Amino acid sequence: MNTRWLDDRIRYDGSQLRAHWLLRGCGLAGDAMVAFRGPCHVVVAEMADLADLDGPGIAGDDLLHFVWESFAAPDLLLAVHRQRLLAAQAAELLRELAPTVGVRRDGDDLYVGSGKLSISIATCTPVSALVHFAVNATPGGAPVATATLAQLGVDPRRFAEQLLARAAAEQDSIAQARAKVRPKGEWQP
Amino acid sequence: MNTRWLDDRIRYDGSQLRAHWLLRGCGLAGDAMVAFRGPCHVVVAEMADLADLDGPGIAGDDLLHFVWESFAAPDLLLAVHRQRLLAAQAAELLRELAPTVGVRRDGDDLYVGSGKLSISIATCTPVSALVHFAVNATPGGAPVATATLAQLGVDPRRFAEQLLARAAAEQDSIAQARAKVRPKGEWQP
Amino acid sequence: MNTRWLDDRIRYDGSQLRAHWLLRGCGLAGDAMVAFRGPCHVVVAEMADLADLDGPGIAGDDLLHFVWESFAAPDLLLAVHRQRLLAAQAAELLRELAPTVGVRRDGDDLYVGSGKLSISIATCTPVSALVHFAVNATPGGAPVATATLAQLGVDPRRFAEQLLARAAAEQDSIAQARAKVRPKGEWQP
Amino acid sequence: MNTRWLDDRIRYDGSQLRAHWLLRGCGLAGDAMVAFRGPCHVVVAEMADLADLDGPGIAGDDLLHFVWESFAAPDLLLAVHRQRLLAAQAAELLRELAPTVGVRRDGDDLYVGSGKLSISIATCTPVSALVHFAVNATPGGAPVATATLAQLGVDPRRFAEQLLARAAAEQDSIAQARAKVRPKGEWQP
Amino acid sequence: MNTRWLDDRIRYDGSQLRAHWLLRGCGLAGDAMVAFRGPCHVVVAEMADLADLDGPGIAGDDLLHFVWESFAAPDLLLAVHRQRLLAAQAAELLRELAPTVGVRRDGDDLYVGSGKLSISIATCTPVSALVHFAVNATPGGAPVATATLAQLGVDPRRFAEQLLARAAAEQDSIAQARAKVRPKGEWQP
Amino acid sequence: MNTRWLDDRIRYDGSQLRAHWLLRGCGLAGDAMVAFRGPCHVVVAEMADLADLDGPGIAGDDLLHFVWESFAAPDLLLAVHRQRLLAAQAAELLRELAPTVGVRRDGDDLYVGSGKLSISIATCTPVSALVHFAVNATPGGAPVATATLAQLGVDPRRFAEQLLARAAAEQDSIAQARAKVRPKGEWQP
Repeated sequence: MNTRWLDDRIRYDGSQLRAHWLLRGCGLAGDAMVAFRGPCHVVVAEMADLADLDGPGIAGDDLLHFVWESFAAPDLLLAVHRQRLLAAQAAELLRELAPTVGVRRDGDDLYVGSGKLSISIATCTPVSALVHFAVNATPGGAPVATATLAQLGVDPRRFAEQLLARAAAEQDSIAQARAKVRPKGEWQP
Repeated sequence: MNTRWLDDRIRYDGSQLRAHWLLRGCGLAGDAMVAFRGPCHVVVAEMADLADLDGPGIAGDDLLHFVWESFAAPDLLLAVHRQRLLAAQAAELLRELAPTVGVRRDGDDLYVGSGKLSISIATCTPVSALVHFAVNATPGGAPVATATLAQLGVDPRRFAEQLLARAAAEQDSIAQARAKVRPKGEWQP
Repeated sequence: MNTRWLDDRIRYDGSQLRAHWLLRGCGLAGDAMVAFRGPCHVVVAEMADLADLDGPGIAGDDLLHFVWESFAAPDLLLAVHRQRLLAAQAAELLRELAPTVGVRRDGDDLYVGSGKLSISIATCTPVSALVHFAVNATPGGAPVATATLAQLGVDPRRFAEQLLARAAAEQDSIAQARAKVRPKGEWQP
Repeated sequence: MNTRWLDDRIRYDGSQLRAHWLLRGCGLAGDAMVAFRGPCHVVVAEMADLADLDGPGIAGDDLLHFVWESFAAPDLLLAVHRQRLLAAQAAELLRELAPTVGVRRDGDDLYVGSGKLSISIATCTPVSALVHFAVNATPGGAPVATATLAQLGVDPRRFAEQLLARAAAEQDSIAQARAKVRPKGEWQP
Repeated sequence: MNTRWLDDRIRYDGSQLRAHWLLRGCGLAGDAMVAFRGPCHVVVAEMADLADLDGPGIAGDDLLHFVWESFAAPDLLLAVHRQRLLAAQAAELLRELAPTVGVRRDGDDLYVGSGKLSISIATCTPVSALVHFAVNATPGGAPVATATLAQLGVDPRRFAEQLLARAAAEQDSIAQARAKVRPKGEWQP
Repeated sequence: MNTRWLDDRIRYDGSQLRAHWLLRGCGLAGDAMVAFRGPCHVVVAEMADLADLDGPGIAGDDLLHFVWESFAAPDLLLAVHRQRLLAAQAAELLRELAPTVGVRRDGDDLYVGSGKLSISIATCTPVSALVHFAVNATPGGAPVATATLAQLGVDPRRFAEQLLARAAAEQDSIAQARAKVRPKGEWQP
C-alpha cells in the first residue's frame, strides 16, 4: 500500500471519497492512503453513512484527513474492519504522543472526554473499498462538541506521517501473517 | 455472535483451535467466542503459525484464553483483521483497568515493557475461521520474558467477561455499519 | 433476519426494491423482510427483470408484497436461490391453508390452473441483494390471467405473517446447518 | 449440470459424498448429479452432519440416492440453499405423483405423517460443494420410523429421472434469471 | 459460453461495453462472446480505462471487434486475466495465419513492429464482467501508428470465427481442468 | 510477487507443490514464484490432476521447474487462468529465443511438433493457490515423446530468469490494470 502526505490544503466535501480520486486527483495507482489538511463540509449527496442524513451535519474548519482506497481486497465488511483498526491505531498513536490525555475509541469514533475528536466512514464502489478518517486539527466549525489535536498538543503533520506509516505497516504485517499460517482441521474428541 | 465464560480450567494445547470445538466441546453452534483459564502448551503439530515452528515454544502455566470461530464470514484475511482488532480492544480494556501501566500493541501481540503479555493466531478450516488470543494470568512456565494480568492487578475473569462483551458489541456494530452505508461512484474532476 | 408486517397500504412501483428502503422507509437495519398490502404498478425504469421490458406489464390492484434485503450475504446467485426457496415455501404454505386447491410452482412463479398467482424478482445493489415476491390478494388490474388469495380463501395477513415466520426460520435453520457440517475430502477408490 | 441414472445398485456408506466420486466413480466431469438405488449405512467417519454423531444412525435397506457435486459455485452457504430447494422440489414432485398423500418438508427432511421419508446433507470439499439426498424406496433397516416411496405408490426410477430433470432445469433457469436481471440503486425518498 | 458472428457492421462507441448489450442488442443470454466489424470511436464518457482519458483517443475506421460478457464468474481480477489470455490467443492465431509476420503481445496489446494492432479493456458492471478486444482490419482513422489484418493478409471474418472458437474452447478446457484437480495439503519437511 | 532462481538441483516429486514449500523450503513469504532445475518423478499420491492417475506417469531426467504460490488471490478458477497465461508467456518467450522452431500451446501444454515440451498443473490448498509448470531441459526419462530446450537451443537458466521476470511483470501489469478501470453500467437502447 502506497502512502503520501499531500501538502496542499483540500476542502473535503465527500466527493473525494469516490473511486479513483487517489489515481486521478493524486496520481496514485492501486491500493493507497493519503493524508492532507483542510476544512470539511460533507454535502448530503456525498454522505455515505445513512445515519448522518438526519444528523447535525459533518463539518469543521480544520481537519486532518485520511483517504484510503483498496482495489486488491474490496469487500465492504473487510473495509469496515480496516476502518475500525485504523481508528484503534490512531488512538494508540495519540496516547503515545499525548500520554496524559485520555483518548477513547468507540467503534469508528475517537473521543477526548465528551468531545468528538474524529469522523469516519467506510464504503465501497463497484471497483474498490474506501475509508475516510479525519481528526479535528484546530477548533471551529463543527456542529457538535469536539476535541482537537491542538488541545492534545499533537502536531497534525507528524501525526499524519506516523499514522500513514503504521497503517501501511499493519497491512504488510497482516498480509505476511495470512501467508504464514497453516490451516487447521476438524476437532476430534 | 454468542459468547460464553467457561468455568472449567482447560489445558490449551492447540487442538482446541479446530473446527467445531466450540460446538462439540462447548455446545455452541454458529459464530461464537469463549473464554477460559488454563495452562498452555501448544504441541508442534497444532501450531498454526509457521513462524513458531523454530521458536522457543508456546507455553505458560496459567493463561486466560479466548477462542473465536466464525462460519458466517470465514475468509482468512478478514480473520486476521478481526484478530488485530481484538488485540487492540484487549489493550484498550487493559488501559482502562490498569491506567498506570503502559500496555503496547505490536500487531497481534501485547507487551508491558519488554514483557510479552499475550499470544495469538488467526487461521482457517475448510468451513470456518478461527482466532486464538490469550494473555498470561499469572507468571510461570513461559519460554520468554512475560507480563501478566496479576502484575497489572487485573482480575482475569472480569477482564474476560468485559472483552467478550466488547468483541461481540464491536461485531454487532460492524454489521450495522456495513448495512447502513450507501455506495459511492466514480470521481468526477 | 428481522421480519415485520406493515399495516399501511403501499403502492408498489418497483422503487421499493432499492438499497436501504427497508432502513429508510421502514426503520429496519440489516437483513430483513417485510410484508404489506397494496396495488402494484412497476414502472419500466424500475423493472429489474429484462425479460419484462417487452412484456404486458407488472400490475395489479391489490397484492400482498414481500420485500427482502440482505447485506450479510449479498451474492446475486445466492439471492436467486433464496427467491426460489421463498416461492417454494409460499406454495407449501398455500397448500396447507387451501388444501383442495392445486398450487403449482414454476421457477419463481406460482400458478393455480392457468392463473398466475405471483410475481417475483431477485436482484442486487452495490451493497445488498434484494428479493420482491408478491401474490395477488383480490382480482383486478393485472395484464394477464391471474389467480388470487381470495379465490383460495386465504387471508392475506395470516398468510403474510406465516410466510415471514417460515422464511426467517428457514434462514436460521440454513445458518445452523452450515455451521454444523464437517467438510469431506477426496474420494479414494 | 449433467445428470445420470446409474443402473447398478450401490451401497451408500457416506464415502460417495467425497470430492470427485462422480468423476472417478461415474465418469462425470464438472457439475453433475446422479441417482441410484441401494442400501444405506453411513459410517461415523463419513457423517458430515455433526448433529448425527450422537444420533440413532443413518441407515436403511433400500433407498433412492441422489449425489450432487458442484465445482463452478462451491460456496457452502449456497450449497445448503440448493439442498433445501432440491428437497422442496422432491416434495413437489411427490405431491404430483401421489396427490392423495400429504408430503411435508421440514428443512432438508421430507415426512409423510410421522414417518421420515428422506435423509440429506450438504457439505463442502476444498474444491467443490456436495449434496446427498435420499428417500426410502421400500421399508426396512432404518433406526427411526420411516415412510417409503412404496407406501406412496411411486416408482423409484421414474421419480429419480424426473427429479434429476427438474433439478437440472431449475439450475438452468436460475442461471438464466441471474443473467437477465439488471441491478438496482439506492432508494431515494 | 455462447459465441456468435454478427453480420451487421456496428459502430463501436463504447456503449456496447455495458451490461446486457449482448442480451438486449444481440439476443444472447448468459456468458457469451460476439464478434463484428465496424468503425470505432470511443466517446470519453464510455472510456473504461482511466489511462485513456488523457490519451490520443480510441478510434479507427475499420476494426474487428470482440465483446465478451460473463455473469457466472464476474470478478474483475479474473476478467483481466481472461482478457490477457484472449490477447495471447489472438497472437497465437495470427502467428499461424501469418507465420512470416512477427506479432508481439505486450499485456493486452498486440503489435506488429511499432504498429499497434489492437485495443482492449476489461471492466465490470454490478452484475457481470466485460472484455472488449479489437484488431484493426484495414488502415485509417487511428490516432496512433497501427498495424492491420490487411497488412498481415488475414481475413477478418475467418480470424474472428477461429478466435471465437478458441476462446470458447479455452474456457471449456479451463472449467474441465478446475473440476479435475484434487487439492494439496501442507508441505512437510 | 517475489521471484527467485534456485541454484540447487531439486528432485521434483510433487511434494513441492504443497502449501508453504516456498516459505519453509525456500524462505519466501507471500506470493512468489521460483525456478530450479532437476529430475521429475511425480509420485501418484502427489498427482493433483486426476486425469494423470491412469496415465503413463509424469517423469523426466532433467526439467526446468517453476513453482508459484499465491495467498493474496487463492481462487482455483483464477489459478487455472494464471497457469494458462504462464504457458502462453513461455511459448511467447521460446518463439523469441528460438524463432525458427514452431512452439505450439494447447491449453496448459507446449509442444514442438509432436513432442511434448512441458507439463503443468494448477491446484489449491486451504490457504493458497499453486501452479507447477516445467519444461524439459534435456532428453531422457520421459514416458512420452518429448521436446526439450536443448533441442531448441535455449539455455534453461536464461529462459527461467526471463520467464520469472515476465510472469511477475504481467501480474504487476494486471494489478495496475484492475486498479485503473472504471466500471460500466446497464446498456440503454
